Amino acid sequence: MSINRQIHLVSRPAGEPTADNFRLVEAPLPAVQDGQVLVRNHYLSLDPYMRGRMNDSKSYAEPQPLNQVMLGGTVGEVVESRNPHFKPGDQVVGMGGWQEYQLVDASQRGVLQKVDTTHIPLAAYLGAVGMPGVTAWYGLTQIINPKAGETVVVSAASGAVGTAVGQLAKARGARAVGIAGGPDKCRYVVEELGFDACIDYKEHRDLKSLSAALKQACPNGIDGHFENVGGMILDAVMLRANAFSRIAMCGMISGYNGEPIPMMAPQLILVNRMKIEGFIVSEHMQLWPEALKELGMMVATGKLKYRETIAEGLAAAPEAFLGLLKGRNFGKQLVKLV
Amino acid sequence: MSINRQIHLVSRPAGEPTADNFRLVEAPLPAVQDGQVLVRNHYLSLDPYMRGRMNDSKSYAEPQPLNQVMLGGTVGEVVESRNPHFKPGDQVVGMGGWQEYQLVDASQRGVLQKVDTTHIPLAAYLGAVGMPGVTAWYGLTQIINPKAGETVVVSAASGAVGTAVGQLAKARGARAVGIAGGPDKCRYVVEELGFDACIDYKEHRDLKSLSAALKQACPNGIDGHFENVGGMILDAVMLRANAFSRIAMCGMISGYNGEPIPMMAPQLILVNRMKIEGFIVSEHMQLWPEALKELGMMVATGKLKYRETIAEGLAAAPEAFLGLLKGRNFGKQLVKLV
Repeated sequence: MSINRQIHLVSRPAGEPTADNFRLVEAPLPAVQDGQVLVRNHYLSLDPYMRGRMNDSKSYAEPQPLNQVMLGGTVGEVVESRNPHFKPGDQVVGMGGWQEYQLVDASQRGVLQKVDTTHIPLAAYLGAVGMPGVTAWYGLTQIINPKAGETVVVSAASGAVGTAVGQLAKARGARAVGIAGGPDKCRYVVEELGFDACIDYKEHRDLKSLSAALKQACPNGIDGHFENVGGMILDAVMLRANAFSRIAMCGMISGYNGEPIPMMAPQLILVNRMKIEGFIVSEHMQLWPEALKELGMMVATGKLKYRETIAEGLAAAPEAFLGLLKGRNFGKQLVKLV
Repeated sequence: MSINRQIHLVSRPAGEPTADNFRLVEAPLPAVQDGQVLVRNHYLSLDPYMRGRMNDSKSYAEPQPLNQVMLGGTVGEVVESRNPHFKPGDQVVGMGGWQEYQLVDASQRGVLQKVDTTHIPLAAYLGAVGMPGVTAWYGLTQIINPKAGETVVVSAASGAVGTAVGQLAKARGARAVGIAGGPDKCRYVVEELGFDACIDYKEHRDLKSLSAALKQACPNGIDGHFENVGGMILDAVMLRANAFSRIAMCGMISGYNGEPIPMMAPQLILVNRMKIEGFIVSEHMQLWPEALKELGMMVATGKLKYRETIAEGLAAAPEAFLGLLKGRNFGKQLVKLV
């Protein structure tokens, strides 16, 4: 019997998570049964939403169980199959978790999807042509729905979601303004991705300063905002929001460790007749084919650019995840296993 | 030349308004010119939105100009007309302001509307079959859009807007829960209007207590909320909000005097995939005919009940308005001039 190395969550963080919350475990790899497929995971996806699942509290998803494999998206290759729909060598995307191999009952629809890597790299199915890309697409097209000439702001602009939000907004004729941490990320967002402007939030430690920077970057105000961070960034955006502006609430990473992140002036929702809507992309599966079609076409033709930060080896996953929560990644954070 | 008594705004409040911000003025009443109509105002409408206009700050409406007649809705009777569409004796609704007579160029469409008082009292066109009624209708049907069996909460439940929100929700098969100040208002909302429950916010001075009361009144959580107050009430409602709940943001009277009213936990918008939308009913004129048809039919057939607090005489308008801001009215606040 072979060995499968896994990362388990072994304790829940009180505030900021640490490496001690995780443990590398060697588990036996059972024989493949009828209907099952054995996949060797090539890349793990690390995503901010995983922080929420580490808590044992009411949220949109069940908590990550303790002493089990960390849940998460993966891409990989079928190494053994007793399912007629898959054969060794197939490249697949699934929810394989933080482990080297996944053994799945592939007869359940949607558990494992074959992907075509002729024009799109395998890892992109965890980023621009995967959950983060569809997240960007959903919030931008279904909530913000920008008209040409409108201004769209996105926080965490150099991340897997943010890069796609801005480029999708530009493709619709909107002005795209990013908020990111540090001059390198800001330069990348503007020079490589074609955003119209990017604000380095590390240069603006108080609301007044950040709001002034937004005023300069958005001379016609803000019509749409894609929120990944929350807290002071959301407050500053609301101070510059136009009448009938829309905010897609995708993440609030600034409060993930339990810090209070009050919204300073909710009366602006009324004054500016704003719409604020929270969403979880996995609840809108009926729109994924349309989103993936546009995202895949844009990646294949070079119109949707992205960047990856790749940690090497399963053991590196916890530290890479902690870095992601602090914004140390640059673009999509992956862990390469093969 | 006749005399027209008016209330002017003569200074802007710093915080809470006082009677000194207003002055009773006697102005000459010019002769009626071609196209004009002279209306004797029978009732003035006093509404919370007027507080916002007293400030000289950016909002959705222009500030109320100083040393001019306070703007506001009125119903009255045509006493003289040099306009072919109106004749003496016509009963009309318009924006006559806080004065005994209004002289208007009635050739502009929508400035003055004839109303039928066969089955609907004249004053109701300032309440249930007027702006407050349409406000309730818009927020409930266009934003909250409750399904039968869902729970809808409304703050300021015994007010002109709140009473209509709850009864419209009931008419759609939803559970209606009010929040109001004092046992008399709560009893009225439940016993006279048929709400399923009403919480006296004066009995709940902190968030924990109010949230517990909401839990008891809404055993299946809250699916829709119509917000007239903001502050702690909004925070308490959000703590009990269901997945995919909707909040129609209509007013935030708790912050009208400049008090900070932060939203404690905006992350709940994401956790519960909520939609929060602010609106101003005058920006949706295309829906008024449909709304007024339903509201008028319900009032005429006794299915939409309402209550009025009536101040007597123009000079009483400022104090009545200050009382409205403190919740001293019970139902629609009017000033009776004739």
